[in-house]
Amino acid sequence: MTNYKAPLRDMRFTLFELLDFEGHYQSLPGCEEASLEMINAIMEESAKFSENVLSPLYRIGDEEGCHWIDGEVSTPSGFKDAYEQYVEAGWPSMTCDPEYGGQGLPASLGSITGEMRGTANWAWGMYPGLSQGAMNTIGVHGTEAQKQTYLTKLVEGSWTGTMCLTESHCGTDLGLMRTKAEPNGDDSYNITGTKIFISAGEHDMAENIVHIVLARLPGSPTGTRGISLFIVPKFNLDSDGKVADRNQVRCGSIEQKMGIHGNATCVMNFDGARGFLIGEEHKGLLAMFTFMNTARIGTAIQGLAHTELGFQKSLAYAKDRLQMRSISGVKNPDGAADPIIVHPDVRRMLLTQKAFAEGGRMLIYFASKQVDIMQRAESEEQRKHAEDLLSFMTPIAKGFLTEVGFESANLGVQCFGGHGFIREWGAEQNVRDCRISMLYEGTTGIQALDLVGRKVLGSGGELLKNFTKIVHQFCRSQSDNAEMQRFVEPLAQLNGKWGELTLELGNRSMNNADEAGGGAVDYLMFSGYTILAYLWATAALKSQQTLVAGSTEEAFYRAKLETAKFYYERILPRTQVHETVLLSGVDNLMGLAAEDFQF
Amino acid sequence: MTNYKAPLRDMRFTLFELLDFEGHYQSLPGCEEASLEMINAIMEESAKFSENVLSPLYRIGDEEGCHWIDGEVSTPSGFKDAYEQYVEAGWPSMTCDPEYGGQGLPASLGSITGEMRGTANWAWGMYPGLSQGAMNTIGVHGTEAQKQTYLTKLVEGSWTGTMCLTESHCGTDLGLMRTKAEPNGDDSYNITGTKIFISAGEHDMAENIVHIVLARLPGSPTGTRGISLFIVPKFNLDSDGKVADRNQVRCGSIEQKMGIHGNATCVMNFDGARGFLIGEEHKGLLAMFTFMNTARIGTAIQGLAHTELGFQKSLAYAKDRLQMRSISGVKNPDGAADPIIVHPDVRRMLLTQKAFAEGGRMLIYFASKQVDIMQRAESEEQRKHAEDLLSFMTPIAKGFLTEVGFESANLGVQCFGGHGFIREWGAEQNVRDCRISMLYEGTTGIQALDLVGRKVLGSGGELLKNFTKIVHQFCRSQSDNAEMQRFVEPLAQLNGKWGELTLELGNRSMNNADEAGGGAVDYLMFSGYTILAYLWATAALKSQQTLVAGSTEEAFYRAKLETAKFYYERILPRTQVHETVLLSGVDNLMGLAAEDFQF
Repeated sequence: MTNYKAPLRDMRFTLFELLDFEGHYQSLPGCEEASLEMINAIMEESAKFSENVLSPLYRIGDEEGCHWIDGEVSTPSGFKDAYEQYVEAGWPSMTCDPEYGGQGLPASLGSITGEMRGTANWAWGMYPGLSQGAMNTIGVHGTEAQKQTYLTKLVEGSWTGTMCLTESHCGTDLGLMRTKAEPNGDDSYNITGTKIFISAGEHDMAENIVHIVLARLPGSPTGTRGISLFIVPKFNLDSDGKVADRNQVRCGSIEQKMGIHGNATCVMNFDGARGFLIGEEHKGLLAMFTFMNTARIGTAIQGLAHTELGFQKSLAYAKDRLQMRSISGVKNPDGAADPIIVHPDVRRMLLTQKAFAEGGRMLIYFASKQVDIMQRAESEEQRKHAEDLLSFMTPIAKGFLTEVGFESANLGVQCFGGHGFIREWGAEQNVRDCRISMLYEGTTGIQALDLVGRKVLGSGGELLKNFTKIVHQFCRSQSDNAEMQRFVEPLAQLNGKWGELTLELGNRSMNNADEAGGGAVDYLMFSGYTILAYLWATAALKSQQTLVAGSTEEAFYRAKLETAKFYYERILPRTQVHETVLLSGVDNLMGLAAEDFQF
Repeated sequence: MTNYKAPLRDMRFTLFELLDFEGHYQSLPGCEEASLEMINAIMEESAKFSENVLSPLYRIGDEEGCHWIDGEVSTPSGFKDAYEQYVEAGWPSMTCDPEYGGQGLPASLGSITGEMRGTANWAWGMYPGLSQGAMNTIGVHGTEAQKQTYLTKLVEGSWTGTMCLTESHCGTDLGLMRTKAEPNGDDSYNITGTKIFISAGEHDMAENIVHIVLARLPGSPTGTRGISLFIVPKFNLDSDGKVADRNQVRCGSIEQKMGIHGNATCVMNFDGARGFLIGEEHKGLLAMFTFMNTARIGTAIQGLAHTELGFQKSLAYAKDRLQMRSISGVKNPDGAADPIIVHPDVRRMLLTQKAFAEGGRMLIYFASKQVDIMQRAESEEQRKHAEDLLSFMTPIAKGFLTEVGFESANLGVQCFGGHGFIREWGAEQNVRDCRISMLYEGTTGIQALDLVGRKVLGSGGELLKNFTKIVHQFCRSQSDNAEMQRFVEPLAQLNGKWGELTLELGNRSMNNADEAGGGAVDYLMFSGYTILAYLWATAALKSQQTLVAGSTEEAFYRAKLETAKFYYERILPRTQVHETVLLSGVDNLMGLAAEDFQF
């Protein structure tokens, strides 16, 4: 089985050559010390940890899985030890507030190193990933005392976090939630109810687990406006904030699932567990969105991770496996057959993965840069602009990158032929692990509704215009660059069409609200392909410029140009279908009564 | 978990109303007794067996899997008992030659009942499925003595069969094969070598296993022209043809794989095993194609099976699961929320599955009808015409139906949200079981090369014209039917484009042989969508006619028309992309050196 190698060269291209992260970090207040040298050193350490510690646990995690005994969950061999190393090296605190023990580095470094951990071993990476969400939530909504008590421990890594939203009868529709929180008369509440699908809800890797739980106060309004947010620790704390007796929250069972076996997906029973309100009463869902936005960008990274891993595995196999001769003439005369990478259809599958891996990386870094700016830029205007861009891009990044991530993971398997179906190579695990990404943190359909309803139509098109303006300016700036016209012309056209499609969908939705729902996923995918087209055009330009200036790495930049060309000629035409289908309207979906779908 | 229900109403529509199987069976020599009543009775018995015996073993097969101990393989609980019932009821002999114990019914009945068994439990269905292939091979290429010895036992069902082609270093490229066959001086050969990926290669369900094995005779030509075919029984036979001592063929291990855990995928070690030549020396690959054609149609049925199963499961869930209110107004005022089938995007996912399930069924029945005609029609001309059609349709049916089957199985999961990732519902198993269908019996890429290279360009376009002529005649016959124009116009246009694309691809391939390889999969998918468009148009016409004539089942026929409309408006536009991408040429695939795919 091919082990993961962090694609440092491509990461550096995207960060430093394309998106000027060096200048970006220098410009962020408090991040001046994040020099090129320092970032490179962090990336190299992260690569080592991911390649040498996490990647070897990839298959073990899948085969052993987690085990539940009497409410306790043991993680696969090596997981706990890897977590200890992770804590020891100070990774949990990297991007956290120095006031609570953090190193104060920019949030984007979490995405950059998170991609490496996640590609090496997604199931393992979810444990610290969930903690990150809990840290963000407490950091933004917690009281000073809560930060001192809980945040410092999460930052240290000695405790981990979870996110307890879903109940068996409600996932997307959190308004139906039933878990109750009754005031105890002191500052605490009794939390009672059952939550399901709680990732990292119980495990043996940390001293304590901080559950962030949605529940209803007595007499709260029905629906989503009556939900509050609570901190519920696995172990109660004594007056010094040290771990004391067991709280009444226990893991009832863990789910049998398709993949990510190394991560425990728990049913959590809260049986009068002691909890503490975080943020305002009845405003829990709003506060939880802090957590969910982190989680959505995290899940977008999952799409990229499985694309990259499948690509690495299938590329290695395609160079090695000898089978048939090239139709256009023998390429490997000394071998019994040619390596399958000579065959056009195998190349089609590899290049699709490559275009989505490198394109997805550009998208994630672009979005992560906005996170930094939103959190740290000096001017309100800059922060607002970044927040708007991010708010627009989040559902697209999550929905689009996980959909094409799953396509890519499957193409990875396809390159192996029958061997792809066998566990040994790890390609089929990559598909199974990936499948959840289109489901959790809001399905693709839910991301699409968020995009169309709340973000695009909800802002009267403003959030879209923020982005199309960037594309427009890029296209205009390259209007005299003859070599770039193969990218600029279709991009400019698509950018215009994006606006027209939005207008059309908005108009139709005013007459029939179902139109937005019927067109949403096609709109999201259209948007994703267009954003990637913009990013690939910028990568092509940078490569063209570097080649003109003279480079010792000609092959690298030529490969970028070839991949951009591939993307424009073989992937981008998919926008045609999304456009046609969206414009076909919703009548072709609504005609059948529910009982007439099957006879 | 929803259990499988055979879609008998839809099957009857397709068989009797659309494709006139009653008249078809009556016209086949030797099949006159296959009356409507008889076929209905067979279908109902098959439905009962599939629903009541096989479907309950669906999850058990996955969870228990097969177990290897010292060369013996045990199948999951209930598999052996189900096979006994299957044999008892006489199913193995249904379509076989009466001279060797068969019932002499048309081959298409095997596809019709096979779909039911396969949808209820694909892993189980593979055991008798492999036997069917062995029967066909011995039936066509075996000597009279071989038929009396082996075929009779396979027909009876007391023995099962396998197909031993693949070796670890060769799957697609059988010319590299190393397994040797050395003459013993009598009528037997010593077979030595290792075969992998042998489905049903070892198990506990039958008294003996008849392996059909490809191997090389001493001094044979290199490549595929030096391969011969052998019968190698698990147990040698005594002079009465009774099972005697163990032959030197043993199962070395079974594969750990993504799905179809109930079927044993075996490494088979032939260690001087006694075998018998079947067919001519060095013509083994040709003879094996008899087997592989059966297997390809069988695998096309697998695409349909997973589409149907995912559809049934997700439809039941979508009607039952309450989550959110319809955007266009409350639909279920008495419930806490509306059933998710009210949401346009859920309908999109359900209708996609429905269109591929019912469309796939039309395609399989249409092809199976050609099998009957090819095998039994009186005139040589009829047989030739059917054979040509089938030869053209087989790679499309296999490649296209498994690709859209996998898409459908995944949409089935997507309708469940997070619950789709959990084993309990069986939707994720459907995805895992389905994944192999695009790989075995030739990957989609290999089907596409067979279609483009051997079938379409290899026949100078003749095999395509056989089919486009049928479509053309249909369109012309409906040119005055105003209500049908929404189908007929785009279909006629697409049919013309099919020819043009073929011509273009042929011309380009003459200049650069790689063009055929680079465009093949897009060509195959274009062809699949077009064939399904033709079939959906015929279904729409039949439904329109029936409604005009007056029917007590209005809802059924209206649902057909709605689904046809959905297919034309929301699925068929995909042909645009396949056309554009194919016409983009192969240069965008061939530009990168193998070492420049990653840095």
